[in-house]
Amino acid sequence: MKRTVLVIGIGVGNPDHLTLQAIDALRRADVIFIPNKGRGKDELARVRRDLCERFVRASCRMVEFDVPRREAAGDYCATVDAWHEQLSGLHARLLRTELGENECGAFLVWGDPSLYDSTLRILDRIQAAGLKFDFEVVPGISSVQALAAAHKLPLNAIGHSILITTGRRLATGVPDGVDAVVVMLDDGNALSTVKGDFEVFWGAYIGTPQEILISGKISDVMETIARARYDARKANGWIMDTYLLRRPVRE
Amino acid sequence: MKRTVLVIGIGVGNPDHLTLQAIDALRRADVIFIPNKGRGKDELARVRRDLCERFVRASCRMVEFDVPRREAAGDYCATVDAWHEQLSGLHARLLRTELGENECGAFLVWGDPSLYDSTLRILDRIQAAGLKFDFEVVPGISSVQALAAAHKLPLNAIGHSILITTGRRLATGVPDGVDAVVVMLDDGNALSTVKGDFEVFWGAYIGTPQEILISGKISDVMETIARARYDARKANGWIMDTYLLRRPVRE
Repeated sequence: MKRTVLVIGIGVGNPDHLTLQAIDALRRADVIFIPNKGRGKDELARVRRDLCERFVRASCRMVEFDVPRREAAGDYCATVDAWHEQLSGLHARLLRTELGENECGAFLVWGDPSLYDSTLRILDRIQAAGLKFDFEVVPGISSVQALAAAHKLPLNAIGHSILITTGRRLATGVPDGVDAVVVMLDDGNALSTVKGDFEVFWGAYIGTPQEILISGKISDVMETIARARYDARKANGWIMDTYLLRRPVRE
Repeated sequence: MKRTVLVIGIGVGNPDHLTLQAIDALRRADVIFIPNKGRGKDELARVRRDLCERFVRASCRMVEFDVPRREAAGDYCATVDAWHEQLSGLHARLLRTELGENECGAFLVWGDPSLYDSTLRILDRIQAAGLKFDFEVVPGISSVQALAAAHKLPLNAIGHSILITTGRRLATGVPDGVDAVVVMLDDGNALSTVKGDFEVFWGAYIGTPQEILISGKISDVMETIARARYDARKANGWIMDTYLLRRPVRE
């Protein structure tokens, strides 16, 4: 007699990124929880709803909920911690009130649940606080892989490493010995801080009809990327972009 | 009038890792090239054949080919380079002789084509040598994501970076400031060289019925992993394993 929670990676905007495992998980769900993240993110909620209409059982209930915004000011870790605490309370209430014993609920995660997403951490907090449920994780195509596929690139040089990092960390410099860096969650300011003769492979809205790809030597294309990013964000109301930096390696 | 080559990520052993995009690509193929990698890898060729039987058109031709082994001795980069040259010649012959003009051929890549796989590099070499064809890349679930999903873990600590590296590189040490490392292609010797109070989350045959998961403080589980790895390899004739190292981070 236990609730089950499925955390399903749904890829990055292209409904065809869904795996058979994800479709099977969608079909098992009695309830799907759909977050509303506020203005400008309607498009993302729409993609989630479209997937559901296509794949879930007719009896599946859709429960939409508003996601509070994280405090933008203050210490980064402290504000994230406070925000996760708030989200944990919210999610715990959703599971208690919307999901019957023996029912199966699902959260749909953009990309892959293991990469820069807080759903697993929030579920851990709720379990630590004493709410009992089983949970399962279904991996999904991340923006990292979708970026590489769109540019038809291997991420790593032969036998070399890859660093996946955030715009915030990139601004503090690329570690020595790292020659391939994938940057996520850049608010648009980190690329201009990069020192060195990297090539950049940038993509926005990857896998969707609005996809934009730009690549070249960083000094040659930095302005083009900044302008494309600004214009696209203005036109669409939101942007999701990722990029790979590679030092030229003779192979 | 051009040949098309599809490079399709097929996930890591669970046929349900296939995406709708990958299934669509399999259905477009007139020819599928199936590598035989020699003794002990029959199981891997079998999974590829099973996927094909389930998804390709009845008229699709399967072309099996033997993959030469890489020289184990000598400088790593030089032997890989020589091996890729040999593979490029072999692949170019396959495309010329087995794929008609306007036909579509497919290579199925274990995991994701962008991570520690040589198919894209080999196709680049063939194009640079003058053979004309279009190519498309379909991302797939990598062992990195499947590992994280199996352990129900986020890879990164909040706002921190992730390093993806090889057993060979790990043996030279974990870079300063890196507190999450995913290790691929370890021949079984690198884990024992790790210094520091990492936790390890190890998995073999992830997503398959033989899946093995072990986790704990590295000093506590290192021997258990080494023994499980040795036994499983002996029993199955091959092993594919991956692990995540994480420094304990208060979140």
